[in-house]
Amino acid sequence: MFELLNRIHGTADLKALYPEQLPQLADEMRHYLIETLAPIGGHLGAGLGVVELSIALHYLFNSPQDKIVWDVGHQAYPHKILTGRLAGMPTIRQYGGLCGFTKRSESEHDPFGAGHASTSISAAYGIAAGRDLNHEGYHVVAVIGDGALTGGMAFEALNHAGAHNNRLLVILNDNEMSIAPNVGAMSSYLARIITGKPYTQAKDTAKRILGKLPGALDAAKRLEEHVKGMITPGTLFEEMGFRYVGPIDGHDFDHLLPTLANCKELDGPMLLHVVTKKGLGFSPAEEDPETWHGLGPYNVETGIPHKSAGCPPTYTQVFGNTLADMADHDESIVAITAAMPAGTGISLFAKRHPERCFDVGIAEQHAVTFAGGLAVAGKRPYVAIYSTFMQRGYDQIIHDICIQNLPVTFCLDRAGIVGADGATHAGMFDIAFMRNLPNMTVMAPKDEAELKKMLATSRKINGPVTIRYPRGNGYGVDISSSSVLPVGKAEVLEEGSDGLVVAVGSRVRDALSAVETLRKEDGRALTLLNLRFIKPLDVEAILSHLKQGKQLAVVEEGIAQGGIGQEIAVAALKSGWSGPFIHIAMPDNFPVHGTQNELLRDLKMDSQGILKQLRDH
Amino acid sequence: MFELLNRIHGTADLKALYPEQLPQLADEMRHYLIETLAPIGGHLGAGLGVVELSIALHYLFNSPQDKIVWDVGHQAYPHKILTGRLAGMPTIRQYGGLCGFTKRSESEHDPFGAGHASTSISAAYGIAAGRDLNHEGYHVVAVIGDGALTGGMAFEALNHAGAHNNRLLVILNDNEMSIAPNVGAMSSYLARIITGKPYTQAKDTAKRILGKLPGALDAAKRLEEHVKGMITPGTLFEEMGFRYVGPIDGHDFDHLLPTLANCKELDGPMLLHVVTKKGLGFSPAEEDPETWHGLGPYNVETGIPHKSAGCPPTYTQVFGNTLADMADHDESIVAITAAMPAGTGISLFAKRHPERCFDVGIAEQHAVTFAGGLAVAGKRPYVAIYSTFMQRGYDQIIHDICIQNLPVTFCLDRAGIVGADGATHAGMFDIAFMRNLPNMTVMAPKDEAELKKMLATSRKINGPVTIRYPRGNGYGVDISSSSVLPVGKAEVLEEGSDGLVVAVGSRVRDALSAVETLRKEDGRALTLLNLRFIKPLDVEAILSHLKQGKQLAVVEEGIAQGGIGQEIAVAALKSGWSGPFIHIAMPDNFPVHGTQNELLRDLKMDSQGILKQLRDH
Repeated sequence: MFELLNRIHGTADLKALYPEQLPQLADEMRHYLIETLAPIGGHLGAGLGVVELSIALHYLFNSPQDKIVWDVGHQAYPHKILTGRLAGMPTIRQYGGLCGFTKRSESEHDPFGAGHASTSISAAYGIAAGRDLNHEGYHVVAVIGDGALTGGMAFEALNHAGAHNNRLLVILNDNEMSIAPNVGAMSSYLARIITGKPYTQAKDTAKRILGKLPGALDAAKRLEEHVKGMITPGTLFEEMGFRYVGPIDGHDFDHLLPTLANCKELDGPMLLHVVTKKGLGFSPAEEDPETWHGLGPYNVETGIPHKSAGCPPTYTQVFGNTLADMADHDESIVAITAAMPAGTGISLFAKRHPERCFDVGIAEQHAVTFAGGLAVAGKRPYVAIYSTFMQRGYDQIIHDICIQNLPVTFCLDRAGIVGADGATHAGMFDIAFMRNLPNMTVMAPKDEAELKKMLATSRKINGPVTIRYPRGNGYGVDISSSSVLPVGKAEVLEEGSDGLVVAVGSRVRDALSAVETLRKEDGRALTLLNLRFIKPLDVEAILSHLKQGKQLAVVEEGIAQGGIGQEIAVAALKSGWSGPFIHIAMPDNFPVHGTQNELLRDLKMDSQGILKQLRDH
Repeated sequence: MFELLNRIHGTADLKALYPEQLPQLADEMRHYLIETLAPIGGHLGAGLGVVELSIALHYLFNSPQDKIVWDVGHQAYPHKILTGRLAGMPTIRQYGGLCGFTKRSESEHDPFGAGHASTSISAAYGIAAGRDLNHEGYHVVAVIGDGALTGGMAFEALNHAGAHNNRLLVILNDNEMSIAPNVGAMSSYLARIITGKPYTQAKDTAKRILGKLPGALDAAKRLEEHVKGMITPGTLFEEMGFRYVGPIDGHDFDHLLPTLANCKELDGPMLLHVVTKKGLGFSPAEEDPETWHGLGPYNVETGIPHKSAGCPPTYTQVFGNTLADMADHDESIVAITAAMPAGTGISLFAKRHPERCFDVGIAEQHAVTFAGGLAVAGKRPYVAIYSTFMQRGYDQIIHDICIQNLPVTFCLDRAGIVGADGATHAGMFDIAFMRNLPNMTVMAPKDEAELKKMLATSRKINGPVTIRYPRGNGYGVDISSSSVLPVGKAEVLEEGSDGLVVAVGSRVRDALSAVETLRKEDGRALTLLNLRFIKPLDVEAILSHLKQGKQLAVVEEGIAQGGIGQEIAVAALKSGWSGPFIHIAMPDNFPVHGTQNELLRDLKMDSQGILKQLRDH
């Protein structure tokens, strides 16, 4: 069944094939991906969309000498297969298995790892500039989706690279999608290019680009450029200093091979516009690419995802529904997402309040400051961005929101350990980078009911607020209450005189379980505080429960350095307390990928791990 | 002498003038600015460039109902004068005086404060979107320089706003400068527009834009657009969904007034391209706009800056010269600046190694990842960015540098208190946001000699490094040594049994002075550690000098929350130590502006303040 595919143990095996065999290889690879991912899930749609492009690139370029940089990296499954990682594919995104993105430590064919969007042109141009300083001759290729092109740093990179003559090939993989359908003016622009005329035939394209003169544009050439603009799309990229080639059909080797071969011969910055279809070859994924972007196990025949029956709602769902409910009675509430309406739960809000929902594209910097503008106009913006992506808007949170003390609430989903997506997506820094900001309030709910209350509370706070909550399902607790929490007050869950455990958000339940076990099995009675507010810190509650000489433990799902445990340590020290201090938090390295439970277990942050650490000290 | 200017106590007084009087007002304002800033310094050039534009805007729009958002805000001196702040101008950037940028708390005419670049379109579009949800009718104007347009978030904002119909006027203030001469493809593009044809006459411009149909572009209009492209510049902005108007002469009221009046009547997103000259009216500033961007006191007749004679070299100079020296013998070293070659000292490197120096524009995100690419290509990149602007590249530092453990060194000038630039420029978060990153080494030199040694040390570390150092002059110490420091080892400067003071970088000298005074005057003998390495932390040295029951103090020029003092507290607590703990650091609010010494005094972080705190505990 996988006659050609099974021969591919590396790029040399690919190069041994005849061009006529490549469509069959592509076909086999599609079937292989659909079958292999069915029981384990993964980023299927993105990979299916670039099967031919990946084959063509490795057929014509010589990786690892030539450097191919995949933006985001979730579309790199075909690339992994072609570069000797076929055998590992059934383990992808699983504990100990292949990474779901490109990763330098995994293969010499991954010259620059990824996970977040919009980085590839910067990285590739850096490699190209270094290559030229070294007087080396290899090729550097960045493959970036049209969605990732909305990220500002991609524009920064185009602006830089387009002003210089270093040889660099940027392939725009245009599938009119990022994760959700694409938004913004760039997306409309690309759509106009594609619909404006039939795809250029590969032969003509090759002729045209070879006939073009290199060199900087000058005033005399402007007229020519504009006349050409009438018949040639891509003026915008040409104005940015890139030689534009395309659009070509990204699923047709007769377009891809000659065009790429010609691009290899040219110098300077080039942009090749390739049109692909996300999910091609698997009809459920073609028809609903947003759902099929990244997913769990599914039925390979019907495409129906395996669902665990009767799971409690996710934090994401509770967030989306709660915000929509709040907006029913409060005209001031608006919601902002950065190209992740479904992932963040904002799609639930968007259905009910479309005019108050803003999808700004993959543009976290803009999302934050745009929210600041909305706040100035009297609105109450809720910015829903994963913890890891919020890192992109850090300066804007400080400069535009906190300094001006504007009432913008940041809702950080996927805070803490995220699981299969691994290090690049870990939400491990937000406690550290948010709690150090003046004017900021930071909350973390112990369950989905508390998330709802924290959203109600945020509406009462006249300044910046962060709510961080984990990936995955809640506990199925009653979520009928929307009561407002007292700001800066912790909740006492257990009381005892043998020590104090302060637990934060997603770690409260496991800490409770550990404390209960200790009481039952060891007769040790610990006080357990659910911190609720990382900032302002409830120093009073902490100090009032500290017992001289008895244990103090802090449990938080975030990096230890800069974590709230360190501030609690300061409070304890200043109060004159001494005794065993245990900081149960993420250590000073980046996590591997695996399930959330596997990682929590490894880090000794699940109930067993917390129990053991409390017991041993 | 200031006949018209002295009548302006607010925008109503401006509106009472005849249009024919505006050139005289502009003339008076220029003279006023040149005279007023001579003894105190400030951002003269940027303000001189927008005198007419500021007058025209306030003549035609109705601030504060209409919202004018100035990007960066350093060009807003004329705006401040026109909005009732004339009397405060002699105090600008001084302790207790007017802020050097726009600031919400200073005036209702500053709807969105600034300091960092590229935020204005996002903020203005947020205000416009909120206005439209509120069914209000006011105007929103963003004024952004061509330099700020290279920042990715400006592109993100254009991409978002250009896809919608909210009325928004973006004025591109094109002076072919950010702070240094502009770089990048966008800059070339704008230059081509301006040189391509004579400025449109105001009358024609008005006619043309009024004759243009609003509404989304469709396929049928593409041909028309491209034909128009031949006679009309600005295709790039039109492709991004903006109605492009210009270029017009930004110093000619006959251009400005009718064009702005017409822009007011139109709906949807508009970009008005205004050409100005930075520093216009003061020949030294016109001729050397980079030097005159922001400066100290100068002679109003000759334009020669008052220089304090015989000052020791600045950290900036020592950094620039040292890196250039290192590069003399090391081909791998490359330097990256984000539009601040002079401010960061990179211009010193650029003179000697131009081919290895990269100015990427105002594009910190790209700067970081581009450096990562250079590292992959075998180079050793040094990224020189002010502490406060490094916040823009936080995600890239994590995702592209630290996860991949690439040897990129971040050289953070202006770390800690920056003085006259105030809260937006305070380098107060870098210790907190860098020290929590796995694989990162963080250093802070006690003087300029140690800066040189830390640069030598960074070259030996095969992973990410941060060196943070303060604004201003060194101490004039001998900088002949380039010895490499032992990684992770603190330096003992004083020894004593009455307690331990751990001081970081810029606070070491003042801490030393305080410790010496205590020893002399009070007979108290404290140990003083110069920490050198914020990460890895020299826990061994700290614990070995801790004396049970005796004072432990940490002095660092950064925010207390998340500061290294908190990690030191954890180490002390875990060791079983107890005693008075003093964390001398920046408190949980944003600093005001003033001189560095005034602010250090207020925060009790100068030698007197440290002494007092050590004494009182």
